[in-house]
Amino acid sequence: MDLYTPPIADIRFNLEVFGYEQDVASLPAFADFDLETAMSLLEEYSKYCVEVLHPLNKSGDTTGVRFDPADSSVTMPEGFKEAYAGYCENGFGSIPWNAEHGGMGAPFALSTLASEVMIACNKAFSMCPGLTAGLIDALEAYGTPAQKEVYLSKLISGEWSGTMCLTEPQCGTDLGLVSTVATPVGDHFELTGTKIWITFGEHDLTENIVHLVLARLPDAPRGIKGISAFLVPKFLEDGSRNPVFCGGTDHKMGIHASPTCVINLEGAKGWLVGEPHKGMRSMFVMMNAARLNVGIEGVALAEAAYQASLKFAKDRRQSRALDAKKQDREHAADNILVHPDVRRMLLDVKSTTEGLRGLVAWIALNYDVMHHSTDEAVQQKAEDLVALLTPIIKSFGSERGFFNVSTAMQVMGGAGYTADWPVEHYLRDVRIAMIYEGTNHIQALDLVGRKLMMGGGRLMRVFAGEITDLIKSCADDARMAPFVEPLKAESKRLNATTMEMGGMASADHEVMGAVASAYLNQFALVTLAYVWARQAKAVIDRPEDDPQRRSKLQLARYYMELVLPEAAMYAQKVKAGKGAVVDIDVDLL
Amino acid sequence: MDLYTPPIADIRFNLEVFGYEQDVASLPAFADFDLETAMSLLEEYSKYCVEVLHPLNKSGDTTGVRFDPADSSVTMPEGFKEAYAGYCENGFGSIPWNAEHGGMGAPFALSTLASEVMIACNKAFSMCPGLTAGLIDALEAYGTPAQKEVYLSKLISGEWSGTMCLTEPQCGTDLGLVSTVATPVGDHFELTGTKIWITFGEHDLTENIVHLVLARLPDAPRGIKGISAFLVPKFLEDGSRNPVFCGGTDHKMGIHASPTCVINLEGAKGWLVGEPHKGMRSMFVMMNAARLNVGIEGVALAEAAYQASLKFAKDRRQSRALDAKKQDREHAADNILVHPDVRRMLLDVKSTTEGLRGLVAWIALNYDVMHHSTDEAVQQKAEDLVALLTPIIKSFGSERGFFNVSTAMQVMGGAGYTADWPVEHYLRDVRIAMIYEGTNHIQALDLVGRKLMMGGGRLMRVFAGEITDLIKSCADDARMAPFVEPLKAESKRLNATTMEMGGMASADHEVMGAVASAYLNQFALVTLAYVWARQAKAVIDRPEDDPQRRSKLQLARYYMELVLPEAAMYAQKVKAGKGAVVDIDVDLL
Repeated sequence: MDLYTPPIADIRFNLEVFGYEQDVASLPAFADFDLETAMSLLEEYSKYCVEVLHPLNKSGDTTGVRFDPADSSVTMPEGFKEAYAGYCENGFGSIPWNAEHGGMGAPFALSTLASEVMIACNKAFSMCPGLTAGLIDALEAYGTPAQKEVYLSKLISGEWSGTMCLTEPQCGTDLGLVSTVATPVGDHFELTGTKIWITFGEHDLTENIVHLVLARLPDAPRGIKGISAFLVPKFLEDGSRNPVFCGGTDHKMGIHASPTCVINLEGAKGWLVGEPHKGMRSMFVMMNAARLNVGIEGVALAEAAYQASLKFAKDRRQSRALDAKKQDREHAADNILVHPDVRRMLLDVKSTTEGLRGLVAWIALNYDVMHHSTDEAVQQKAEDLVALLTPIIKSFGSERGFFNVSTAMQVMGGAGYTADWPVEHYLRDVRIAMIYEGTNHIQALDLVGRKLMMGGGRLMRVFAGEITDLIKSCADDARMAPFVEPLKAESKRLNATTMEMGGMASADHEVMGAVASAYLNQFALVTLAYVWARQAKAVIDRPEDDPQRRSKLQLARYYMELVLPEAAMYAQKVKAGKGAVVDIDVDLL
Repeated sequence: MDLYTPPIADIRFNLEVFGYEQDVASLPAFADFDLETAMSLLEEYSKYCVEVLHPLNKSGDTTGVRFDPADSSVTMPEGFKEAYAGYCENGFGSIPWNAEHGGMGAPFALSTLASEVMIACNKAFSMCPGLTAGLIDALEAYGTPAQKEVYLSKLISGEWSGTMCLTEPQCGTDLGLVSTVATPVGDHFELTGTKIWITFGEHDLTENIVHLVLARLPDAPRGIKGISAFLVPKFLEDGSRNPVFCGGTDHKMGIHASPTCVINLEGAKGWLVGEPHKGMRSMFVMMNAARLNVGIEGVALAEAAYQASLKFAKDRRQSRALDAKKQDREHAADNILVHPDVRRMLLDVKSTTEGLRGLVAWIALNYDVMHHSTDEAVQQKAEDLVALLTPIIKSFGSERGFFNVSTAMQVMGGAGYTADWPVEHYLRDVRIAMIYEGTNHIQALDLVGRKLMMGGGRLMRVFAGEITDLIKSCADDARMAPFVEPLKAESKRLNATTMEMGGMASADHEVMGAVASAYLNQFALVTLAYVWARQAKAVIDRPEDDPQRRSKLQLARYYMELVLPEAAMYAQKVKAGKGAVVDIDVDLL
């Protein structure tokens, strides 16, 4: 049964709505990537994901990875090695990198939206190219010319893969506690320490694995300002084995085919990336694109779960329509799509998933503008939107993604809970997205504690300006009122919440911690209302029977009437401040 | 590491608050069960769960059950057989049944609250006695004296176990579609058909398994009014094998140690229970207590997950307190309990879990009153509360339970996602509770379509009367205002929503379907506010430094300020009516 079809049409729609041709393809860097070219690359990529990666998803989950303590090797499930080789041969790992080291030089937005399809087809597999991409980003930003020469083309081609070695047993969120030591020895360093939760830290897909390791120089200041970043390859240039070994793999609720490794550095040779004690910069370069991708995980698995549940619903007959006129007397029961609650669940998932996809497209396109525009004002505005909305995509995308997969399971009843359908697998796989690459609350603190403060509130003004411009542009169109009026009301409420929170938090930092998660959700709901209003505006002038117009308008209406009301609830939770949260006796918990 | 301690003190507290001694132990039937006797039985029971069932929980999940197609047998994971035997030897399966067939004759409330502990220790195991209990209920209500004689003592002792065979491949929610046929042959019937998702349909814990099977007599009317119930034992009285065979077990996201079976009836001998075509009555008797128990699954696993996450939090140090005065300069980082968002998550779980436990206690006690009171008015009121609030316990208990286990996982970060901690297991196990024993939306339809209508709205008036009485009794106590005022405001809003929904739905049944799930959640949130106000009132006169007083008041405050605001959001969703949900083109989904 064909349970997943890549949402190519909706990706294209969003590229169009959020300005692919005007804002990105028009940049000199992307002269070769008009929309049609971009779309044919996306189709080719999607075809590979569906035909090669998707069939390995269930077997990979069932088999999992195999760690052998005898030689500290990790064997991937059957078929992954060949699938990875084919992925690289097709150049799919090289899409967004510039041509100097063998990249295709396509827009980041394209590879980002494409990654949804790979994740939906095989999330565990997708994490290998995902981590490699982070390392490439870090090297492009901070690598020496010699490092770029040695590593970039191998990483971009996929011959080698990359990792991000941050966490240690005593430090996850708080990287200031890193205790891995890097001792200078001649032209290099020797690293000693233990890293945990290293995704694809060991595997048999590539001939070499390049770790980016956070560690501390002997003279390092304490805390976060004493962290440096090092390149630590599994095999050195002379072919000898560097003493960086996998000490085991974790047993997890999901992503069984993604090896999560303990990595022991036993005097492993490493080379500094960037300046001493400035390792967090490399980390953040790796992390920023990764955070977008984690948000996409929620979109991808919710879409895949939605499609499975919709197929189930189309076949399933149970009970009678509540409206007698809709009853199908040729069958003993009606198709469950007649039941309002089944529609409600499907619309809940679809409206938030398509809203999030639009948000990802908007921000990914701004990412390209931020990197390639030569107009300083345009560049700055793009950077502001990326900075402001990345934590929202990561956090809301992953949380809503988890709820959405669960809702899709609910549509299917008991069938959804069994392994006969893929949804239980998706639910297990998607849950980690709320945790890694900075937990969702860390995203909320980033939003409230950093992004809202930057440039004296400039980012929020840029965002509010976008909303105001959209509202103004629809002022004379009564057809847009059902979408614009709720957006107006809720963005006004968001501004009030922001002011109120600012007032409370400036006198008391604990308030910020207590309300940040609720505030992020309120912000996210308003952002999706903006995205839905943009999508609605993009179709409103089409003929009334245009299917995409009808589909987008019915989803936009659902979003405004039945999802957006959640924003006021979060506003209420922000208003409650810190009292009931903080002024407690923890010994009574 | 000792990760779970049964919440005995909170169970006792709720038995006291909700009238165990005045309303239940005072009934002649329970003369032998004063509170101290009840509590010592509960402690003995809990000890067995913790010492014997808990250690089998993880291994049972990892091993799962083994189906052998050669002889259609199902082998339980190691240790389950011995644990089950010990459970029966201690008489733990016999607690609430009357002495005539070997029961202990204790209040139902006691066995119900005790079951939380068994579920927390080993949910998969708990399903075997759980299903047996349903069958005992059905037989006590509708069995012939001869059937009671043959079956009841064996089921109550646990020598035999019971099942509930309802679902077939083409019918789950809609039991009117049952097609299993029962043909009369002499003094019995021969049943032919296939049943799916039969919990403990086959296993090696007991010498016999007794199925309660819904089937259709040859002359049965179509639909739900043509369903009869039959007793179909695996082994007949002469020891011969009845042709009712397990055809396989399902692979599921969780409850791996609970066999979910396909059951093939191949001309199996069966005996009618109750009247022909009235099988749904037996089914509902089985189902009602089962629905309470499913709500408890959410409470049990949320409590267990909460305790694990709290233990993790107490040991974990990451980052610095936002309030400099709270920073612990003797360590490189502060304990994560200083972080407001960690407190928020823990309070979210604890306040809703303890609120739900109180609700379960209240309704379970009313269950005993309904069955044993001789005062007709008292009996009727108890019956009304049980009928009204059972769907709320099942639905809100299971949904919030799922969210709560997920929130506990979030407290633990990556650790919670690994199998090194039990929370990922709990999350997989608890998810099914939203689906079985009637999906959560079926509960909502039961609430809105049946319970609100009964006796011209009598049930709702009884419930509103309880709230009004409580509010009045607190009128002169300013200390109670922070709990009573929000309850007052939200119960007023609930009444308005109920009226408004009634107005919309009476003209259009589809509205009911569209809004029922949101309405149930609004109702549940107000109900928990009532429970919290009751709990607060119960401790308010104690000395200010009494730990239980302080704990209950800080949780009640959290609930009122940070959970109850969700009620207004659901009211808003009800207000939206059916338009955006129903008036869509499903072909565009």
